[in-house]
Amino acid sequence: MRDLIGIEDFSKEEIDELIEISKDIMDNKEKYSEMCKGKILATLFFEPSTRTRLSFESAMLSLGGSILGFSNANSSSTSKGESLADTITVVSGYSDIIAMRHPKEGAPLVASMHSNVPIINAGDGGHNHPTQTLLDLLTISKEKGHIDNLTVGLCGDLKYGRTVHSLVTALSLYSNVKFVFISPEELKMPEYINEILDKKNIEYVETNNLEGSIPELDILYMTRIQRERFTDVEEYERLKDVYILDKKKLDNAKEDLSILHPLPRVNEIAVEVDDDKRRAAYFRQAENGRYMRMAIILKLLDEKNLNYEYKHLNDAIESNNCKCENSMCITSIERGLKQLAVKCNDNKLRCIFCDHEIK
Amino acid sequence: MRDLIGIEDFSKEEIDELIEISKDIMDNKEKYSEMCKGKILATLFFEPSTRTRLSFESAMLSLGGSILGFSNANSSSTSKGESLADTITVVSGYSDIIAMRHPKEGAPLVASMHSNVPIINAGDGGHNHPTQTLLDLLTISKEKGHIDNLTVGLCGDLKYGRTVHSLVTALSLYSNVKFVFISPEELKMPEYINEILDKKNIEYVETNNLEGSIPELDILYMTRIQRERFTDVEEYERLKDVYILDKKKLDNAKEDLSILHPLPRVNEIAVEVDDDKRRAAYFRQAENGRYMRMAIILKLLDEKNLNYEYKHLNDAIESNNCKCENSMCITSIERGLKQLAVKCNDNKLRCIFCDHEIK
Amino acid sequence: MRDLIGIEDFSKEEIDELIEISKDIMDNKEKYSEMCKGKILATLFFEPSTRTRLSFESAMLSLGGSILGFSNANSSSTSKGESLADTITVVSGYSDIIAMRHPKEGAPLVASMHSNVPIINAGDGGHNHPTQTLLDLLTISKEKGHIDNLTVGLCGDLKYGRTVHSLVTALSLYSNVKFVFISPEELKMPEYINEILDKKNIEYVETNNLEGSIPELDILYMTRIQRERFTDVEEYERLKDVYILDKKKLDNAKEDLSILHPLPRVNEIAVEVDDDKRRAAYFRQAENGRYMRMAIILKLLDEKNLNYEYKHLNDAIESNNCKCENSMCITSIERGLKQLAVKCNDNKLRCIFCDHEIK
Repeated sequence: MRDLIGIEDFSKEEIDELIEISKDIMDNKEKYSEMCKGKILATLFFEPSTRTRLSFESAMLSLGGSILGFSNANSSSTSKGESLADTITVVSGYSDIIAMRHPKEGAPLVASMHSNVPIINAGDGGHNHPTQTLLDLLTISKEKGHIDNLTVGLCGDLKYGRTVHSLVTALSLYSNVKFVFISPEELKMPEYINEILDKKNIEYVETNNLEGSIPELDILYMTRIQRERFTDVEEYERLKDVYILDKKKLDNAKEDLSILHPLPRVNEIAVEVDDDKRRAAYFRQAENGRYMRMAIILKLLDEKNLNYEYKHLNDAIESNNCKCENSMCITSIERGLKQLAVKCNDNKLRCIFCDHEIK
Repeated sequence: MRDLIGIEDFSKEEIDELIEISKDIMDNKEKYSEMCKGKILATLFFEPSTRTRLSFESAMLSLGGSILGFSNANSSSTSKGESLADTITVVSGYSDIIAMRHPKEGAPLVASMHSNVPIINAGDGGHNHPTQTLLDLLTISKEKGHIDNLTVGLCGDLKYGRTVHSLVTALSLYSNVKFVFISPEELKMPEYINEILDKKNIEYVETNNLEGSIPELDILYMTRIQRERFTDVEEYERLKDVYILDKKKLDNAKEDLSILHPLPRVNEIAVEVDDDKRRAAYFRQAENGRYMRMAIILKLLDEKNLNYEYKHLNDAIESNNCKCENSMCITSIERGLKQLAVKCNDNKLRCIFCDHEIK
Repeated sequence: MRDLIGIEDFSKEEIDELIEISKDIMDNKEKYSEMCKGKILATLFFEPSTRTRLSFESAMLSLGGSILGFSNANSSSTSKGESLADTITVVSGYSDIIAMRHPKEGAPLVASMHSNVPIINAGDGGHNHPTQTLLDLLTISKEKGHIDNLTVGLCGDLKYGRTVHSLVTALSLYSNVKFVFISPEELKMPEYINEILDKKNIEYVETNNLEGSIPELDILYMTRIQRERFTDVEEYERLKDVYILDKKKLDNAKEDLSILHPLPRVNEIAVEVDDDKRRAAYFRQAENGRYMRMAIILKLLDEKNLNYEYKHLNDAIESNNCKCENSMCITSIERGLKQLAVKCNDNKLRCIFCDHEIK
């Protein structure tokens, strides 16, 4: 069966295919309005995320399907001490496809090991959020007409913001994309991302200067600095407002600069920027999420009977003598879960669930 | 686009039209059962109100449409510090029409300024609740066969109960309606309502005597004295049980008196009164809400492309040097919201969002 | 109208009929996929129970119907002090059938007295949970091909676990069923159940030895020892882990032993047992719930216009001078509810809502 756990589950060809399907849906809504008739999407949100949940639900309803689920963990059996594996096993008997959000990293992978229906990762802590990456790519493609030959600036929390990491990874599949990483020292892009780019000879610069970087950009991807990612509250308070995009900063921006943001925004983008309809693409981006998720649901239901295994699982090894120490990893709470690890290119042993190094 | 923010958004002719459509729906459910096929209603309840939410959802489902949304704010992005404007902008990209409930006065008006789909106000704090008023009128029309030539008693909290205010305003459009305002001194009908009636030469009496007033009434509208409307708890405790309608008080009531109540009731109406099927109309009133909301959804979707602006917006002025001081007004929490005010007949400057006077 | 309050609402013939319909649904899903088109199921969960709620919602959606409701009391009007009777009266005007879960015993019976649509009891505290019993019977029938001539072991909390009680009562309708009651002294099967079996000359043994009992069993029904059922926390802590079923304990079990569990499980069944696909029937059991609930919804909607009264109501007497003292009984919170009692075979006067003795 086919799942969507991380963006790497899809090849560049498949990503381009999803983008084309999304665009076709926008142009021919009627054609798709009954394609999931009789099918049920379960939205299992072990932590609240209204926007993402409503986007998935809107997608399924627009395909003529129906929805059930829960919007936070305390209305789930988890509160009764049930394992994630059991919850998923049961719910996969009530639905045709599952979109899940979970605070622990790797939870969707655990789910996919027990589900009889496709699992879509709607965000697992600070780990993966592949549908966000796919709608970001759709947005770039719609705003610019192409994804290659672009200079892309990413601004804000580049350290903890995993959506940024998978977006960069995905963009690195396209030719002649240049990156400008704009962040304070403390929130710089992690080394392993830079290494990927170095290997592929992809150009990137690191800076803490937003205003100075804007003129050369085709895309500016702003991010929210999220409290929940910080262990040190003071550091959060010091950094949360370092970058605020306002009209003035856009004076020397390209006419056709596209400003993206995963939303919700707090104050990273001044409200006045919303009036710059051409450049302010973040609300169109949110709406694109509905159509990309329709495309994803269709693809996974379509390939439900395909024999496919999460790539890492193939060469995963069971490591009994060592254990993942990442407190945000699903292995830290899930009972009876075997620790699986994989030897990566960097020759480090990494937890297959959260990708953290195992010593 | 057409929204329903306050009852004044609809003319008397439109109100009568909605009542007729509601009645037609009750008589021909089948005829309407697919009219919203493929359409999505978003129920955004920033504070819980099960009855109202389920009534809207039942209405949309009975029209063959589908529903998504949330039932309280902590499962919304508001908890992440997102503005109402952003939430609405995004959700209006996921749905065809929005019914919203919000604790702050004026929130639905703010929403309508950012939404691409019609907004229905399902209650904004103690401010407006137009769908309640419309279903009240439908109930009177069904119970009595007509809305004019009636003596209408309103009992309980006439000061804070805005449903009562908009019901009186709406009834004042019909000819020969007499009012009896029954309340303790502390909860009397506000002056501005009486002034409206005076201007129109509409007869009304104010009293604190429920039993003595009943005999002359065709309609008795009971209300719950709501804790949440009081700043002074002691005053609430003293007043909450002043009026309790029981069988005995109905001894001298007209045979065909109709008793209404917006529900939920706590103890304003003794349970024994429920057995008086003819007079006890409050449960029929609740069911009428389903059909009136079907009519409202149909009308707004129908007039979606009509060019229409919330009446006050036309002559609203931007007042930068003054600010609404009502702590329950949406202006007290919404970031980047311009203070708009309007000069009213009483020559006072009022906040366009909550109608409170601005000094 | 027909409701499902307790398992005794259905005769053996009706139970067998429901089992056959459930099986037919599993084999011919398409045939049933539109049978509830245009119908609305309200799931009113005054306490959370995700599995049960999703199972009902999946059932209704699979019949082509739609759903609305709430998943916990604080998003219901109860929080505003509304009586259950009022909530049900109103919601029954918004839906075609209601499935409700309530922490208080007897709540669904109260609901059925005020509802215009069929009520399904989805669990009332530790009292009844008839749909669980019906899906248990369906599972036994599917796993074994028949329900009679079986040796059934029930293990764990036999004192408070009412699902166990109604399962035993229901199984006692079938011929030649033997029981093995496995529990610690403190959690033994209540006397009144043993008396029922004695009267019918049905064989049963009581033991605290799980491992020793397994070899003779055709069915092993494991239960979770639920904290919420205990007043004494220490007793709970001492007893909660007394029985843990693992692979070793199954060494001498019959090849075709079927292991059931109402779920959620905490650790009563070791995860390793899941691999014993043939014997581990508990996940199939959960999925069966979806189909049995489809059958129940169809039957109740089908017999909606049948004149039927909850059996006990016929010979219930109003007892004004005495009151049920069970703090978990709905009579302890519902305003304006008349205390009804019924004289039982054991000549004791029992509360009709919670079945507790009234002195």
